[in-house]
Amino acid sequence: MRYGTGMAASPRFNPLLRAGKPQGMASSAVGTAAPVFRPGLEGVPATQSAICDIDGLQGKLTYRGYEVGSLATNSSFLETAYLLIWGELPTAAELQAFESEVQMHRRVSFRIRDMMKSFPSGGHPMDALQASAASLGLFYSRRALDSPDYIAAAVVRLIAKIPTMVAAFQLIRKGQDPIQPRDDLAYAANFLYMLTEREPDPLAARIFDACLILHAEHSLNASTFSARVTASTLTDPYAVVASAVGTLAGPLHGGANEDVLEMLEQIGTEDQVEPWLDRAIAQKQKIMGFGHREYKVKDPRAVILQKLAEELFDQFGHDPLYDLARKLESVAAERLGPKGIYPNVDFYSGLVYRKLGIPEDLFTPLFAIARTAGWLAHWKEQLGANRIYRPTQIYTGHAERQWVPQGAR
Amino acid sequence: MRYGTGMAASPRFNPLLRAGKPQGMASSAVGTAAPVFRPGLEGVPATQSAICDIDGLQGKLTYRGYEVGSLATNSSFLETAYLLIWGELPTAAELQAFESEVQMHRRVSFRIRDMMKSFPSGGHPMDALQASAASLGLFYSRRALDSPDYIAAAVVRLIAKIPTMVAAFQLIRKGQDPIQPRDDLAYAANFLYMLTEREPDPLAARIFDACLILHAEHSLNASTFSARVTASTLTDPYAVVASAVGTLAGPLHGGANEDVLEMLEQIGTEDQVEPWLDRAIAQKQKIMGFGHREYKVKDPRAVILQKLAEELFDQFGHDPLYDLARKLESVAAERLGPKGIYPNVDFYSGLVYRKLGIPEDLFTPLFAIARTAGWLAHWKEQLGANRIYRPTQIYTGHAERQWVPQGAR
Repeated sequence: MRYGTGMAASPRFNPLLRAGKPQGMASSAVGTAAPVFRPGLEGVPATQSAICDIDGLQGKLTYRGYEVGSLATNSSFLETAYLLIWGELPTAAELQAFESEVQMHRRVSFRIRDMMKSFPSGGHPMDALQASAASLGLFYSRRALDSPDYIAAAVVRLIAKIPTMVAAFQLIRKGQDPIQPRDDLAYAANFLYMLTEREPDPLAARIFDACLILHAEHSLNASTFSARVTASTLTDPYAVVASAVGTLAGPLHGGANEDVLEMLEQIGTEDQVEPWLDRAIAQKQKIMGFGHREYKVKDPRAVILQKLAEELFDQFGHDPLYDLARKLESVAAERLGPKGIYPNVDFYSGLVYRKLGIPEDLFTPLFAIARTAGWLAHWKEQLGANRIYRPTQIYTGHAERQWVPQGAR
Repeated sequence: MRYGTGMAASPRFNPLLRAGKPQGMASSAVGTAAPVFRPGLEGVPATQSAICDIDGLQGKLTYRGYEVGSLATNSSFLETAYLLIWGELPTAAELQAFESEVQMHRRVSFRIRDMMKSFPSGGHPMDALQASAASLGLFYSRRALDSPDYIAAAVVRLIAKIPTMVAAFQLIRKGQDPIQPRDDLAYAANFLYMLTEREPDPLAARIFDACLILHAEHSLNASTFSARVTASTLTDPYAVVASAVGTLAGPLHGGANEDVLEMLEQIGTEDQVEPWLDRAIAQKQKIMGFGHREYKVKDPRAVILQKLAEELFDQFGHDPLYDLARKLESVAAERLGPKGIYPNVDFYSGLVYRKLGIPEDLFTPLFAIARTAGWLAHWKEQLGANRIYRPTQIYTGHAERQWVPQGAR
């Protein structure tokens, strides 16, 4: 654990003493004990939430009480997004209304397309998505956060337009004009169509939709937490999602599934798995796609993604990297399992996306498309019980010192 | 205090019980007591930091140990930014190098100007700034966070380009081409020049520079906290600043100085101050520009801003709203002072900006220009002792429930 700042020698450094520094807040808190400093706020409750529950010991993940595997099998991404944001599964009429609203708002302004054409084609798609998401705020008036209609409209716009913007940048960076969404295609199929300019196979569309469900929500991960912090100033929802996209873009959060593929390719052949892993463990190297702060068993999403990968391989041909991944999982189970380190959501998702023909640097934007549902659910929940996030710090710096003129420094 | 989610009747709701939910973290924390839930993380230390210290009881604010009033008098914004980010006041040679680097990087790519020309002219400048800041990430390679050169270059680019982008949108939304920075003008003067197309009076430039110093840093306010949360995934610094800009844009954070002017205009005349305030207090209405979670006395920045406002009025003519503001402050001192509610930084800054001829909806972008220094200081500090922010939540939702087919809902 790293929590030093290199200033531990400062005379004012004493976390336990300074943590309880009086700032007129004692009477307003639920608890009364002076809070201690925990790096990364690990184990510190930062909100109450009714959206999602993780049982890290049993490997169980529920959205609004429904187990994620059941949703991946029975539901659609749009239905799951509705559930996450509004709290209950929609009736047939509610779902149809939501789907048709989203369908109507898939197109983006020509101004946004023109803006994206100014982006350098070598830029990362996550940077393009953060700028595009933020730009939506320019088009829609804000500060109507007490209006349920405004909230509903913002939800629809973001769920509808984020995939269009991801697909648009993919075509634009290849030098092509983005294409319009197709009204006869459902959400996942339409996205794959906008991305590849080809109508996708129904199995591919269904599996991609299930991937979106699996990535839709996961409580207070860093991007969702940043969404809530940003939302707590009552800024507009486009700024909230843009903040979360920027957080997700970091390699410690999104992007691990790209690294898994790279790692598997580096290992190369099945007989290299054992020596590679032994060496990696000896060198205390991070094993990509393994371990999670919340789970001490195999991530339930990895279990489902593995099944989806197998369905894809059955229909579209096998990927030898998958055999390598399975072998790595079984060897790692002996070596790392006792420490509670098992495959996480990123371990098999890269193999699925690769089989769907998606470029590796779009894996994290896909994650963003899915997680937009969770971010919006947390945004709406935050508005319902808002208190601006303003934690304290433990000051480790200089005591007051006098100004020194330039000549005397 | 509001912390309910409207689901308190849920059988699983019990904050004190659930806060200590075991998630394999106990041994890795500095403290050992189970953390309690505090809405908005009020009073909860979220980082160690050597950048800035606030003494809310004495009304003292120091940057790296130097009292902010002394910096506003003796230093320049660029020197203060250097101090905040690198920890010590620069030597003459270091300052000159930094100033000349910033000067060289003030221009932005024609692609960014073109992008901004696609923005709808009615959009809010903060949305424009968030999108523009995020777009910088498209131009500069990332994931070189372990390179001091990369960090230094990102600091220079952001400090240099954020004002250029604020000024560019101001001209573009009026239908004009943005103008290039002028190399013979210092930082603050050049910004006012790019904004107004006129070389500013030296006093106006000096006072604007002092305003930037006063707004450069203020520990873990919501925007700085969101910058650290976003930074903790090791995303690029442009995403970090874009996240912070989105957070600052909320009316609970930036924007209060606009509201102060509106309030003063609403009060209208000095004889209306007392009855207006009595009514506002009786109706439990928020008095704009008063009170701060950190200060129980008059905000030291308000003291300095008031002096700067007077200097401006002496040179450029009086503003009758200032007399009204002074009267409101003195009446409020009797009524609200005993509760520790005094003028904060926003109370006089709007009057200063108004006298400088700056449009009201640019007040928050000015705040962003200044606070970029603080955000970058926190970004750099976060990288030096990083741990990803992933707090826990108190789950208040449904226990596990079974999937319900659409017909049965």
